[in-house]
Amino acid sequence: MHVAVNLPNTEGAASPNAGQVEKKAGDSTRVDDAVKPQNSENVLKALADYLADDMMACNREIVARMQSDVPLIPQLAAHLVAAGGKRLRPLLVLAAARVAGYREHGDDMRHVGVAACVEFIHTATLLHDDVVDNSQLRRGLASANAVFGNKASVLVGDFLFARAFQILTADGSLPVMAILSAASATLAEGEVMQMTTQNDLTTTVDRYLQVIYGKTAALFAAACETGAVVAKADDQTREALRQYGANLGMAFQLVDDALDYAADQAVLGKTVGDDFYEGKVTLPVLAAYHAGDSDEQAFWTRTIENNEEQQDGDLERALDLIAKTNAIDVTMEKAREYAEAASAALDQVSEACLAANADMEPLRQLLKDVAIYTVDRAR
Amino acid sequence: MHVAVNLPNTEGAASPNAGQVEKKAGDSTRVDDAVKPQNSENVLKALADYLADDMMACNREIVARMQSDVPLIPQLAAHLVAAGGKRLRPLLVLAAARVAGYREHGDDMRHVGVAACVEFIHTATLLHDDVVDNSQLRRGLASANAVFGNKASVLVGDFLFARAFQILTADGSLPVMAILSAASATLAEGEVMQMTTQNDLTTTVDRYLQVIYGKTAALFAAACETGAVVAKADDQTREALRQYGANLGMAFQLVDDALDYAADQAVLGKTVGDDFYEGKVTLPVLAAYHAGDSDEQAFWTRTIENNEEQQDGDLERALDLIAKTNAIDVTMEKAREYAEAASAALDQVSEACLAANADMEPLRQLLKDVAIYTVDRAR
Repeated sequence: MHVAVNLPNTEGAASPNAGQVEKKAGDSTRVDDAVKPQNSENVLKALADYLADDMMACNREIVARMQSDVPLIPQLAAHLVAAGGKRLRPLLVLAAARVAGYREHGDDMRHVGVAACVEFIHTATLLHDDVVDNSQLRRGLASANAVFGNKASVLVGDFLFARAFQILTADGSLPVMAILSAASATLAEGEVMQMTTQNDLTTTVDRYLQVIYGKTAALFAAACETGAVVAKADDQTREALRQYGANLGMAFQLVDDALDYAADQAVLGKTVGDDFYEGKVTLPVLAAYHAGDSDEQAFWTRTIENNEEQQDGDLERALDLIAKTNAIDVTMEKAREYAEAASAALDQVSEACLAANADMEPLRQLLKDVAIYTVDRAR
Repeated sequence: MHVAVNLPNTEGAASPNAGQVEKKAGDSTRVDDAVKPQNSENVLKALADYLADDMMACNREIVARMQSDVPLIPQLAAHLVAAGGKRLRPLLVLAAARVAGYREHGDDMRHVGVAACVEFIHTATLLHDDVVDNSQLRRGLASANAVFGNKASVLVGDFLFARAFQILTADGSLPVMAILSAASATLAEGEVMQMTTQNDLTTTVDRYLQVIYGKTAALFAAACETGAVVAKADDQTREALRQYGANLGMAFQLVDDALDYAADQAVLGKTVGDDFYEGKVTLPVLAAYHAGDSDEQAFWTRTIENNEEQQDGDLERALDLIAKTNAIDVTMEKAREYAEAASAALDQVSEACLAANADMEPLRQLLKDVAIYTVDRAR
């Protein structure tokens, strides 16, 4: 995995100042008939609404392509599909394709097929993650492994992964397959790397960033880049969209890791403390650990490096230390840098592409909003 | 999964009689410098020897392509590679390619890359199988999950699968990718189907044959077919080689299932009774069950449908009933039919192909021997 070249250079990226961002976000006239974006949930809904026809076609494609003569396969897959999820990755494929000027030719809806494949790859990793983590919940519902068992979850994950490459082969674009097979390998590498950094407080922040690039940002980047490729975008636009996805993915995972110590469980359907109980080394923990005195560092060493010996009250003390050291703010600030880099990347879409697809300007602005409001998920 | 069209029609296949087969197998002058094939092990060794240069290149490719910046990945992969195994599937790719007239152009060794991919796909399924079955042994050594844990095994399996499609994308043949992605999906379907037939004595023999087509024969067929495609074989030759692989795979799995009730553990490194303990419904069990009286059927129902309540002495009684009902012979006879169909399929290689590659005739004969001697593994 060559993370160095893929990690966004936030230094070099244009940073819109906060005032500009607020102005854009508040300017609802840009978005036809969309809900005025005020927070992360609204802005994602606005994006899905803007692409409603594409998303409906994608949902139909997902259901059609997960069919099999072996009934357990669509049953288990439907369990995850029914559980919802934001379909963020297929949304990114569709949005990137449209921003880059994708127009369907008759029945040819290639961007929809690619979007379905990206969702299949993502779903496969979710199924496998839940097995290896022995998770009982996914998106607030019983996980597939809890309902259907580990065996079925592993095998249906394998099926969805294979099916994705079957669809991509039929689609016939070698560049799209190159991007998605490489992203899938990077994804597995990121997960293995996360496993090896678990319980290890000597993990550097750079290493942590490599892990989240692999486990999350690589597929976000691939989703946006394949959208661009399907739209036959020029190289500059393709790279701009890839950078958008990579930076958005980084921001998204940083916020997710912050939420694990800050979320309102009832609101977000996310359990506070999962990462802590598992001894995962995330930025909130690293920031609190590095800012802590020797007594506090000893606490983190005991609870993270030997997570199985955690005691009653440990999570509460962890949350106190994270609050005291502003570790959530550190994490969110990092997320904000990536979100701004994502937004700035969209300014690099080529002039030719912008001129040819002026009608897609509201969508490009919506994608910027998605990036900026990602860091407001925790509020 | 459209098993019906893929399952070999043994009725229609030419059946060489036993005398012919014996004559061919004993005629060692056909095979330059090779050990005289007398049994399954020898004939596989003769095949590997015949393709020694290709196999060495393939082994180098496997080691080179399983590298990653994440050290645990090659470590775990090396554990399986070091454990050996017959490398039967890559051997089939290489052999099919050569029989169909593959000639490398300079450094272009496409058949070797495809062979490595097939082994990666197979290895990924082994890693996942051992996790879902909680197996502690693989090829007589500690399984990867026993050494590295379930999590690493699942993720490295995912990595190898993704890496295979990365290599195939770089190779750039859409037909090869279509064959291998379809086979991978069929493989997962076969495994799921096996899971759903487990503990179920109402499983029909046809259903059982579908399961073993999916879990084993589909990848054998794909290995041979991709070899033919890489060699730019004509359609008739491609179909002949695919049929060879499909029938060989069926024979191979039938023998494997027989060995589970008949193997000499010390010789074959295979444990007798694994399938029984797991409640797997294989042909030896089905044959014994269908041939049994009501008392015997009650025994099978108790031990296979409720395998977790098996008692001391149950395996011994199962082995007695299998012997009494000649269930191993039934299974081996079925295996022999497929082996003969495999051998006969090789007679369908086109005249044009045979004429253009007369120097590969010994290899074609060796492949016939492999099929015929597969059914002697149990001896």
